[in-house]
Amino acid sequence: MYFKVSKKDFYNALSVASRAISNFSPLPAFSGIKIEAKEHELVLTGSDSDVSIQTTLQKDEECILEINEMGSIVIEAKYILEIVRKIDADVVEFEMIDGTLTKISGNTAEFKINGMRASEYPAIDFSKPQECFVIKGETLKKVITQTSFATSDKETRPVLTGVNFSCENKTLHCVATDSYRLAKKTVEINEDLNFNITIPSKSLQEVVKTLEDDFDVEVTVNDKKAQFIMKNTILQTRLIDGVYPETNRLIPLEFSYELTIDAQDLLGAIDRASFIKSDGVSVIKFSLSEEECVLSSRSVEVGSSMEVLNSASFTGNSLEISCNGRYVFDALKALNGGLVKFSLCGEMKPFIMQAIDDDSVLQLVLPVRTYA
Amino acid sequence: MYFKVSKKDFYNALSVASRAISNFSPLPAFSGIKIEAKEHELVLTGSDSDVSIQTTLQKDEECILEINEMGSIVIEAKYILEIVRKIDADVVEFEMIDGTLTKISGNTAEFKINGMRASEYPAIDFSKPQECFVIKGETLKKVITQTSFATSDKETRPVLTGVNFSCENKTLHCVATDSYRLAKKTVEINEDLNFNITIPSKSLQEVVKTLEDDFDVEVTVNDKKAQFIMKNTILQTRLIDGVYPETNRLIPLEFSYELTIDAQDLLGAIDRASFIKSDGVSVIKFSLSEEECVLSSRSVEVGSSMEVLNSASFTGNSLEISCNGRYVFDALKALNGGLVKFSLCGEMKPFIMQAIDDDSVLQLVLPVRTYA
Repeated sequence: MYFKVSKKDFYNALSVASRAISNFSPLPAFSGIKIEAKEHELVLTGSDSDVSIQTTLQKDEECILEINEMGSIVIEAKYILEIVRKIDADVVEFEMIDGTLTKISGNTAEFKINGMRASEYPAIDFSKPQECFVIKGETLKKVITQTSFATSDKETRPVLTGVNFSCENKTLHCVATDSYRLAKKTVEINEDLNFNITIPSKSLQEVVKTLEDDFDVEVTVNDKKAQFIMKNTILQTRLIDGVYPETNRLIPLEFSYELTIDAQDLLGAIDRASFIKSDGVSVIKFSLSEEECVLSSRSVEVGSSMEVLNSASFTGNSLEISCNGRYVFDALKALNGGLVKFSLCGEMKPFIMQAIDDDSVLQLVLPVRTYA
Repeated sequence: MYFKVSKKDFYNALSVASRAISNFSPLPAFSGIKIEAKEHELVLTGSDSDVSIQTTLQKDEECILEINEMGSIVIEAKYILEIVRKIDADVVEFEMIDGTLTKISGNTAEFKINGMRASEYPAIDFSKPQECFVIKGETLKKVITQTSFATSDKETRPVLTGVNFSCENKTLHCVATDSYRLAKKTVEINEDLNFNITIPSKSLQEVVKTLEDDFDVEVTVNDKKAQFIMKNTILQTRLIDGVYPETNRLIPLEFSYELTIDAQDLLGAIDRASFIKSDGVSVIKFSLSEEECVLSSRSVEVGSSMEVLNSASFTGNSLEISCNGRYVFDALKALNGGLVKFSLCGEMKPFIMQAIDDDSVLQLVLPVRTYA
């Protein structure tokens, strides 16, 4: 195994593959990156068995790649990244010299690193699932960032730690909930597919980091895995087993109150009150009437805050409703600013938030009871 | 107690005072900032009993300060900082309304925070010690950053956790050592003072953060404490008890070998090899001769590195010397780049590093024995 490759491209590709690697993987081989020098390309693979990333480096106008001897090896990710990032040359020379001992050379700097045999690396099946659709990188990024924050971080109901993607009638519904709040995004796609899968939130975070706005992403799924194919990179993730709860019945359809407010103003007000916590939670109370909308919070230990929401306009009878400030804050952030409409049913009923000019996203929050 | 003050200036002053506050202080009052509204000024005090900072805010062309009622209160530092940083107005209103309940108002946002009585805050003696000299902020910053990194982080010999400042014949000697390396800076001052004190490294870090390059700092010391007086701020620190070791005899005066090298080149080479660790330490070996200077490192687990130091020139018989790479790296950083001269006595003798064009700083490192 012997090749030369542009430092910058090699480093970028190693970074992409290393994203799948976890520091806590029980299998030693999974702390490494598998590097395969094929006839005309370098294939780099990283995995923690839940998520696997394979990226391919080819020679092009900008990327020097000269493969003199094919072969494969696994090198500890943190070492190879460190070496290639800091090496003193624009072109890196990579050579297996004795068993698994690998020489990586720059200009005057030269490293000899103990690798692992590629045969010790678990076989990962990168075959492409049947169901397949194409989505813009930018849109996929929105789908993920506008929903995944609402997934649960507790393992008590594993299915809630993922985002549910269900597709029918050329419409993709993406839902996340931790049972106290819910985020839902709806996107039209070109294919008439039929699936219902739940993808771990953690895997979707890696998709966001890997994808580029301007490029299309091919998404392929079956009942075992999902693949995101972006340019030269395949990100593959396991799915979460279990039936995702039927969430549509949770979303109210009729409302008695409506609040319209500038998202930035409300974000500022919630942020200002966020240090007033009881038992680690910042509970905010909206006191809403057609005359005045006030946001307040109170904690026996810290004190209280009170703020008139000048940009708010409210229709309906007077209403007091309390909820976790963090949930409203996250939901507003996901709506990307601008004017936001709150539709409410009552003091102890879930309420929904939507951007005035974009009904593809819906954010729902459950209120809490306060005795203040 | 009732005053109005510019948000920006109030926030900056609170930040300065809060630097002295530790999250681990056993005394609850020390988690707060004492705010005193006097006739024409606000005085803010923060302390963790080892370090105390007092800063004074006065009305000037840029800072609005309107004190309508004098008084004093202690407010939890993290709350008051959070409130003032995020408040929705350029001028903050501050009013004690009931016992220790304090109202802080912006434009529409209003907070009521439970404070503590100023009488519960420990009395801190800010009286000025006798021995006094003036030093440029820029120079003091250099004194601290070029030495304090070499202090010990272990409490086994407390005196080594500080930087020793000794003064005689209008010369200030500043020394730090953890017994494996030593940093020494010498500065001329205008006063003929005589003292020998050791200041905790932690306190000096706070001095660096507080001081501004272009302003003079008045340094005053006695055998109990040191004060750094910068514009409107006094930073006062306890000293470390105990006799500081006599370090001059550790610094060799005669040398058999000399290595001159570009600091940036060597920093790069050490940095590249820094991931090759044995028992958590990256040991580097210099193989020096008049023909070629080579830096190498080796670990049974990871592998090895080797690099020819092209910018090096060496005089003397051939020499191999090994040491902790981190120590040489830190020392080179403290010398601020450029050409550096290593003066060496032998394989197991301490060596010193100095910038070619600045002999006010000396860095010493002890070699280690290797069996590779």
